[in-house]
Amino acid sequence: MTSTLPVGQRTDCALAPMFTPRGIAVVGASRTPGKLGATMARSLASFADGGGHLALVNGRDETMHPSLGAATGAGPVDLAMICVPAAACPGVLAEAAQAGVRAAVICGGGFAEAGGAGIEHQEAVAQVVRETGIRVLGPNTSGFLAPHAGVTASFVPGVAGIRPGRVAVVAASGGVNHAVSFLLTEAGHGISLAVGLGNGVDVTAPDILDYLAEDPHTGAVALHVESVADGPRLVESVRCLARKRPVVALVVGQHDVGAFAASHTGALATSWRTTRAALAQAGAVLVADERELVDAVGALAVTRARPADDPGVGVVTAQAGPGLLLLDDLRGRRVQVPELEEETQRRLAELLPPLTFQRNPVDTGRPGPELGEILATVAADPGVDVIAGYALHEPDAVNLAEAARRGLTREVPVVFGVGGSGEEVAAERRALLDAGIAVAADARGVATATGALIADAAARARDGVTTAPVPVPSGISGPHDENQAKDVLGRLGIATTPRRVCANRADAHAALRELGGQVAVKILDATVLHKTEIGGVHLNVRTPDELDSALDALDAAGARRYLVEAMAPSGVDLVLGARRDPVFGPIVLFGLGGTTAEALADVAIRLAPLSPAEAAAMPDELAGRALLEAWRGGPVLDAKELGAVVSALGHLLVDNPGLDEIEINPLRLTRDGLVALDAVIIPREADDAQPDQ
Amino acid sequence: MTSTLPVGQRTDCALAPMFTPRGIAVVGASRTPGKLGATMARSLASFADGGGHLALVNGRDETMHPSLGAATGAGPVDLAMICVPAAACPGVLAEAAQAGVRAAVICGGGFAEAGGAGIEHQEAVAQVVRETGIRVLGPNTSGFLAPHAGVTASFVPGVAGIRPGRVAVVAASGGVNHAVSFLLTEAGHGISLAVGLGNGVDVTAPDILDYLAEDPHTGAVALHVESVADGPRLVESVRCLARKRPVVALVVGQHDVGAFAASHTGALATSWRTTRAALAQAGAVLVADERELVDAVGALAVTRARPADDPGVGVVTAQAGPGLLLLDDLRGRRVQVPELEEETQRRLAELLPPLTFQRNPVDTGRPGPELGEILATVAADPGVDVIAGYALHEPDAVNLAEAARRGLTREVPVVFGVGGSGEEVAAERRALLDAGIAVAADARGVATATGALIADAAARARDGVTTAPVPVPSGISGPHDENQAKDVLGRLGIATTPRRVCANRADAHAALRELGGQVAVKILDATVLHKTEIGGVHLNVRTPDELDSALDALDAAGARRYLVEAMAPSGVDLVLGARRDPVFGPIVLFGLGGTTAEALADVAIRLAPLSPAEAAAMPDELAGRALLEAWRGGPVLDAKELGAVVSALGHLLVDNPGLDEIEINPLRLTRDGLVALDAVIIPREADDAQPDQ
Repeated sequence: MTSTLPVGQRTDCALAPMFTPRGIAVVGASRTPGKLGATMARSLASFADGGGHLALVNGRDETMHPSLGAATGAGPVDLAMICVPAAACPGVLAEAAQAGVRAAVICGGGFAEAGGAGIEHQEAVAQVVRETGIRVLGPNTSGFLAPHAGVTASFVPGVAGIRPGRVAVVAASGGVNHAVSFLLTEAGHGISLAVGLGNGVDVTAPDILDYLAEDPHTGAVALHVESVADGPRLVESVRCLARKRPVVALVVGQHDVGAFAASHTGALATSWRTTRAALAQAGAVLVADERELVDAVGALAVTRARPADDPGVGVVTAQAGPGLLLLDDLRGRRVQVPELEEETQRRLAELLPPLTFQRNPVDTGRPGPELGEILATVAADPGVDVIAGYALHEPDAVNLAEAARRGLTREVPVVFGVGGSGEEVAAERRALLDAGIAVAADARGVATATGALIADAAARARDGVTTAPVPVPSGISGPHDENQAKDVLGRLGIATTPRRVCANRADAHAALRELGGQVAVKILDATVLHKTEIGGVHLNVRTPDELDSALDALDAAGARRYLVEAMAPSGVDLVLGARRDPVFGPIVLFGLGGTTAEALADVAIRLAPLSPAEAAAMPDELAGRALLEAWRGGPVLDAKELGAVVSALGHLLVDNPGLDEIEINPLRLTRDGLVALDAVIIPREADDAQPDQ
Repeated sequence: MTSTLPVGQRTDCALAPMFTPRGIAVVGASRTPGKLGATMARSLASFADGGGHLALVNGRDETMHPSLGAATGAGPVDLAMICVPAAACPGVLAEAAQAGVRAAVICGGGFAEAGGAGIEHQEAVAQVVRETGIRVLGPNTSGFLAPHAGVTASFVPGVAGIRPGRVAVVAASGGVNHAVSFLLTEAGHGISLAVGLGNGVDVTAPDILDYLAEDPHTGAVALHVESVADGPRLVESVRCLARKRPVVALVVGQHDVGAFAASHTGALATSWRTTRAALAQAGAVLVADERELVDAVGALAVTRARPADDPGVGVVTAQAGPGLLLLDDLRGRRVQVPELEEETQRRLAELLPPLTFQRNPVDTGRPGPELGEILATVAADPGVDVIAGYALHEPDAVNLAEAARRGLTREVPVVFGVGGSGEEVAAERRALLDAGIAVAADARGVATATGALIADAAARARDGVTTAPVPVPSGISGPHDENQAKDVLGRLGIATTPRRVCANRADAHAALRELGGQVAVKILDATVLHKTEIGGVHLNVRTPDELDSALDALDAAGARRYLVEAMAPSGVDLVLGARRDPVFGPIVLFGLGGTTAEALADVAIRLAPLSPAEAAAMPDELAGRALLEAWRGGPVLDAKELGAVVSALGHLLVDNPGLDEIEINPLRLTRDGLVALDAVIIPREADDAQPDQ
């Protein structure tokens, strides 16, 4: 794993020469239309128009500089755009570093993604980076846009129409970088920096995220992830950045896209679930597609809600139908839409005609100038942290920007959907944005933006929670049988049922008498990981005869020792595990037990170590969470108890490099709390048993 | 239930006076800006400009007609726009009918949605409709748009910018009607007719759908549903329409929005799941939100794929990153993206540089003029029914419209996403639309449109399947104990395990001996619906002693007779039921058994009667379907066997008005096929036991 500098010691002004260059050289510049070197020179012409030093380099064109050395002689060159074939790139890069150029972009393909000789070309580029310290973006990327610096370092046409603004885009793919930047532009947002990483031979997402943490132009960051090389470093960068500026993440690969993805970047796909879990834990807001990315980051670039555990939304709509779509969508996101307080409803009743719905949602009927007062009244409700509004564009009835500005009376951000078509409507949306109000074109967009503000506020509330370190045993390694594994759980404070280790039948019969009632009788052998599958578990054993039958069966399965345990009360079976992810390191997994839950992969994941408070939120993510909430008169999960158990298990894995995996399956939710019915501890292979990081 | 005319006898030209009027009267017209009567007169001015007869009626304004009678004297009036307070509407409506006006729109609120006197006003309007036959849209709607007829019967500004086209909108809500019409306009689509139903005192969605089936301007229909009054009629209208023109349906109410919804229309919310199932079965394409509605109906208005059971998609992308987003999204929709045939790949290899991905997706790299040939090559692959493409707008590299036109070589429609911003890009998208190619602005939009074409093609393939009627017993009514219920299942060909009805202990012991192995012993009593809950079921009984213990327990639970059954082999437990939905009538439900599946409400629904082929597709919808496909070495569901069982159960309910509900829980999937382990038949209350329809 790549080691990282402690927070605060990062100096990613190393990327300043790339994104705010004094001068740019296009190496392999051309006058032949359609050639990369020509397109790039054309894209960057505006940089020269703005007073930057733009040097075109081509040894075979007399009107251009014959070499990079000549280009740097004519003015400062911080950035080289390298537009030559893959095989020539390492040489040009070395020449650039030699000439004092500190950053380069290699747009062309034919490197690792193409296989064969391309792999060697990429390694040669990496070698120059290691030897010279020059920073390289790409290869295999369409470049970047830095509108505030007047730099359009991309061969894609139309990017000149992208205006400077507050949204940064960090995309794994150059194509997605442009696609998202265009969508943001269409939605009325400006760009602070937009980067497509391509093969990422040197500059990767964490480098850009660290740079953006210090970038005064950036208000919010859209992050597109295809694969992750260094999980802990990405998490640390997102965590640092999210404390300063909101980060919205779109992770690709929910479904089977591996073969195509590999052809694209030459990298293996990361686990979609684990990557999403890690980014969310680091403070990023997750979205499902590029439209949600635009809605969410566009809103967060304009406004941000105060930190709150479970923020409430006040819905204000001028048309009931779209308001119903909005409410349905918010409920699907499990966003709180609380009934407004009596005092709020009383004041709304003074502003609105009788018989409209005023509890929340607030249906204004056809809106008028009182809309601002309505928004202010809803914002003043103690249960409201964000307002989500919708209205068709009706300029004769109300000036939405003016009304929304009046509604912004305290720290309650407003997201407003404006339905309509044409330039006048686009102008009204821009006026709202300029007034610090997030906008959308439809109810789905309002719900997405609102959900993003809520998720960001909840993440910041979590981030403020200090974690008392959980004391866990250390120095644990080697094989554990079930009894030893449960001893370890006992030291973490996790309940088990009374049990006896039995070396022979007499011991087992004594245990049956001692424990009383029904018992479970199991094979006790650290080398057997799946006891049930070999017939090594017998439940509900009551009588000496039944015990003998069970022991006969265990002997037939190869048992040398037995474990006799009191049966646990009935309840809901859960699964809890801690293991090492190859990309992100220690993680914990929590889900419902049983075949159906397993088939649905209904599981919540977190990076370890984590606090009990963080862990306590994991059940909220499960599709089957209703089963934990007194389903059919059953037991209720104590989230705090679960949080303590999960946190302890996570710390155990982190503090014991000798362990590879711990699984409690099932962990049963009973009326008396959580009880571990089985536990498996898998030691780490000797070679791997090094401390993390 | 409202009876409906047989298909083919409908005459919904009854709505022609409303949507293609020769003349329109605005009753309550005004010259005071901001008043409804003024706004409506302004909106309709273009109708007069186009040569239509527009009559403004206001008894207190000398410049206007004093009465409707006077208006009709000045020219033909087919449609009255009634802009007077709710209390005055019934009188004006009667006057209109008297004057020979055949249709009216009541936009104002203050009717059933407001409660109180509003309910009486609405009833009075309904009374006039019943007495005179005048057709009424509303009340409580923003009206309708009929751009081909030059009619803008709406008070919402900006609608004049909506151009004539091929998409019809039928929305429960006036607000959604306008919101969606504006979104369609922004996406480059024109409108054939856009209607908001409001309270639907007379004209409801089926009326409009029947009208659209005969409307030559309409290419596809967007249907927005909040609640359904008459399920069978809606289903029949959608079925008839979908055979002629694609229908895309957005159903509101996935989550708890009931209170607000009721305030909106005064109607109770219909079951979201059942409504979606019914509409899909009738041939509609389902979408999740208004954006998907626009993407889907916009595509289907331009093109339609040939009917196919499980159509395949060829993905062609100029940028790998957006292509990966597209592929991931398509996989999430469970759309087939088959590997292209060798011959196709060979021909692609001649067109494309080496090392690009060509199996499907096809990554063109930076596109050039060969794009048309690439599309044609992919379209010629036998596994490809639809092409989904994406490219950034790069006019220097390729003219997308020209290329896509060349790619349209046979009956394979193309959906193309064009990334970019600004008017030039919008023009390229319009050019594609004009060439019969569906367009989108992003990968999500391409996936939605492609998914819609696929769903439509699959629905049409299903529609062609003829159904051999399943013979089922009739005349069944009254209470059934488990044995009788299983006798009924036996007559349907549904397997059960061998069983004995036992009047006493001696019978039960004889049954144990006869059946051999392990048995289940249950209370046999038609009045006990939940046997397990009262301790009325004992499984795995092997010995006479165990049998006596079980019988003791059953006696304690009040048993007078016992059912002794052979135990079924292990397997996967399912739930299958047939019952009567209050809105849609007989339905069947199929899902996984067990608590987790129940908590997740993982269930597929269909209207009954249905064919075995229709029923066989139900498992595909289950989130946990993997459990039916040899999960962990378990049994595999024979979809054909399930289809026969489900279809039989549905027919049984339809043919036996004396039955209210039949549930098989569990229906166990074993290695030997499906076995019903328990069955409950609930007779209908005497009052309800009338034949359906």
